[in-house]
Amino acid sequence: MRVFIAGVDGYLGWSLACHLAQHGHIVGGVDDFSRRDRVQECGSTSAIPLPTWPTRLGAFLSKWGDDHGPFEMFGLHGNRAPELLTATLGRFQPDAVVHLGEMPSAPWSMKSWENARLTMDGNVMGSLNLLFAMREACPDAHLVKLGTMGEYGTPDCPIPEGYFPDDAEMRLPGSGMFSLAGMAFPRKAGSWYHWTKVHDTGNVMFACRTWGLAATDIMQGVVYGTRIDAMGDDPRLATRFDFDECFGTAINRFCAQAVIGHPLTVYGSGKQTRAFLPLRDSMRCLQLAIENPAEKGEHRVFNQFARPWSVQELANATQAAGQHAGLGNVPIQHYDNPRHEAAEHFYQPVCEKLKGLGYEPSDDLPADLDAIIADLLPHRDRIEAHRAAIAPQTQWNPKAVEVLEHEMEDGLSEVAD
Amino acid sequence: MRVFIAGVDGYLGWSLACHLAQHGHIVGGVDDFSRRDRVQECGSTSAIPLPTWPTRLGAFLSKWGDDHGPFEMFGLHGNRAPELLTATLGRFQPDAVVHLGEMPSAPWSMKSWENARLTMDGNVMGSLNLLFAMREACPDAHLVKLGTMGEYGTPDCPIPEGYFPDDAEMRLPGSGMFSLAGMAFPRKAGSWYHWTKVHDTGNVMFACRTWGLAATDIMQGVVYGTRIDAMGDDPRLATRFDFDECFGTAINRFCAQAVIGHPLTVYGSGKQTRAFLPLRDSMRCLQLAIENPAEKGEHRVFNQFARPWSVQELANATQAAGQHAGLGNVPIQHYDNPRHEAAEHFYQPVCEKLKGLGYEPSDDLPADLDAIIADLLPHRDRIEAHRAAIAPQTQWNPKAVEVLEHEMEDGLSEVAD
Repeated sequence: MRVFIAGVDGYLGWSLACHLAQHGHIVGGVDDFSRRDRVQECGSTSAIPLPTWPTRLGAFLSKWGDDHGPFEMFGLHGNRAPELLTATLGRFQPDAVVHLGEMPSAPWSMKSWENARLTMDGNVMGSLNLLFAMREACPDAHLVKLGTMGEYGTPDCPIPEGYFPDDAEMRLPGSGMFSLAGMAFPRKAGSWYHWTKVHDTGNVMFACRTWGLAATDIMQGVVYGTRIDAMGDDPRLATRFDFDECFGTAINRFCAQAVIGHPLTVYGSGKQTRAFLPLRDSMRCLQLAIENPAEKGEHRVFNQFARPWSVQELANATQAAGQHAGLGNVPIQHYDNPRHEAAEHFYQPVCEKLKGLGYEPSDDLPADLDAIIADLLPHRDRIEAHRAAIAPQTQWNPKAVEVLEHEMEDGLSEVAD
Repeated sequence: MRVFIAGVDGYLGWSLACHLAQHGHIVGGVDDFSRRDRVQECGSTSAIPLPTWPTRLGAFLSKWGDDHGPFEMFGLHGNRAPELLTATLGRFQPDAVVHLGEMPSAPWSMKSWENARLTMDGNVMGSLNLLFAMREACPDAHLVKLGTMGEYGTPDCPIPEGYFPDDAEMRLPGSGMFSLAGMAFPRKAGSWYHWTKVHDTGNVMFACRTWGLAATDIMQGVVYGTRIDAMGDDPRLATRFDFDECFGTAINRFCAQAVIGHPLTVYGSGKQTRAFLPLRDSMRCLQLAIENPAEKGEHRVFNQFARPWSVQELANATQAAGQHAGLGNVPIQHYDNPRHEAAEHFYQPVCEKLKGLGYEPSDDLPADLDAIIADLLPHRDRIEAHRAAIAPQTQWNPKAVEVLEHEMEDGLSEVAD
């Protein structure tokens, strides 16, 4: 199949290009390299050395052949995006368009008004442009859109796949029973970034219903891992690996922290529970979605993860993996939670549709942690050199923290009096 | 109270400024006059002559005093909006900010990719800027945000006010019963415009939860009417009245059509049912929301309407009002529905919270129609001169219509062979 990847230079995008090429698909894509810039602006870098785009693309084409491409360099939002996207998709004529081209960081979106604006504008307008460009250039192609499990928040009930199940009913005392079949499951996102994904979901749903677009909307858990099989041992094919506050995610960050002996950064109680999956599972699931497309007009939502873990469980497992790797006893440090989220909560997300297509979730976290740490150890100095980018800096409600600090100072000065 | 109105030059914004001033509140506001431009671009005009901004403001200040203002002229989106909004709100120090400053037309948003972009960018980014500007300049002010009943679509169950009721439960066969209390009621909007309002709702909800903003989110029905008491008979205080395809709404359009003998434009079967309210009810409800603010951190959602009507019922009532006004028997014409919506459906929206604050819905549609037609009759020539702007032109799925027309042409040519 011909698969166009938006965000092809990213952590997932590059991995998917390699994975799909390895499985015989023809890949094209687009990226504006903003992820590279933003991680650098945050004072960090990829722990695993990141080849330049020409280097990685050269290795890709020499391994998998010149039939791949084109690979274009522009952003999905912005004033010229409509014409560029329409022309690019028209030339490539994809069977599937995989949209991984969004700003992916909750803390980055919460840093400032400007960052919230850039995240909202880039993601919502970029996705809207992609929908319209598909309508113009390849209306029969299948959109595979990356959302996030974070769209749902942590409701006190099982989290279905996008919509209430067909047999779900609402009991309204005094009014009776009503079917909830076909209604979107309510979203309750926890950052500006997560809300952009909710907005995208609404827009994609509407394009499916109104234009007959075929879309699979992926509510993905948190991805971890350094590599997939398709990359082999060629460092030019490696994907990026972030560990800073903004662009690093829980398990990857813990492993990088363990490697340099930085205390594992657990926010709050650590009892927050989220869904996780290794990079190879993410690639396998995306492949399943691509090879088994949605119907015309269908807005198909997959919850995509291997299993839930609490943050504390992950910290404990990383501590054990550190011991195992001879890194000694990495301490666990509980930080005041900079986020606004429930400390303890019910969490029971459903993941059935991908299993129905053949997905078998990985179930060996210790082995995965060992492999990540082994891949990171040669790059210990790179992580150490960016140690300052690790600790949490971004407050979800900075004004409240100012008030709190002010009250604490007042309290202290009263004591001093 | 000091009330800042975003969109103060609009149909609702101007009416609210007059209504609040009449009730002793101090009003300031902002507008970029884009509504004036867009109606003109659509080849139409306000049926009731619209004073220039300096004229209407002069009449306003001479009637209600110079304490009012400032009234600024800029848009809520765009790169300079953050500094301008922050400075304006900081100077005015409002008790309440009423956000009526959005692009309000579903058909306009569906006309083209460019219009969808302008609607999404203007509304979502404008509202986001307003949230951040309030956090900077007046974090304790109460936001009254205009959403729409159209956010909900037409679900097969009663439509609660924003969230599932506290006693609502979900029955999931095989899993048990789960409380739905506090979960957002799912939205299913029917145009890009309506989706911008859904996105706003999510963003406002998040600002309340994270920053402690106090907000009332108004899910308003379709407003009709030419005037409110506060305007008296001063034509300089009149509000606009649109009747074109894009910016005119059902009842107002029917009355304008009746006045010039244009067939009443019923889309599809006319059995589509929506919630409606007269302009004076809208003003009364907004006043109640302002004078009874939400708590800090509360995202309070009001469904705001007098009662539901089907489009056919409204056409019949307008036909009768036309007879009554001596306009003869205005024909009703059923157009192929250019929209993507259910022809017949369940519709049972709840409106309890405003009634709890004292709202008594108007219940005399015939008298309201007589009054609108009487106000429009002196301006018959203005409407007649823009007759071409009345019939529906904008298709929700233009490609499908092209295919259909192509198939029909093929069919016809086969018959001709």
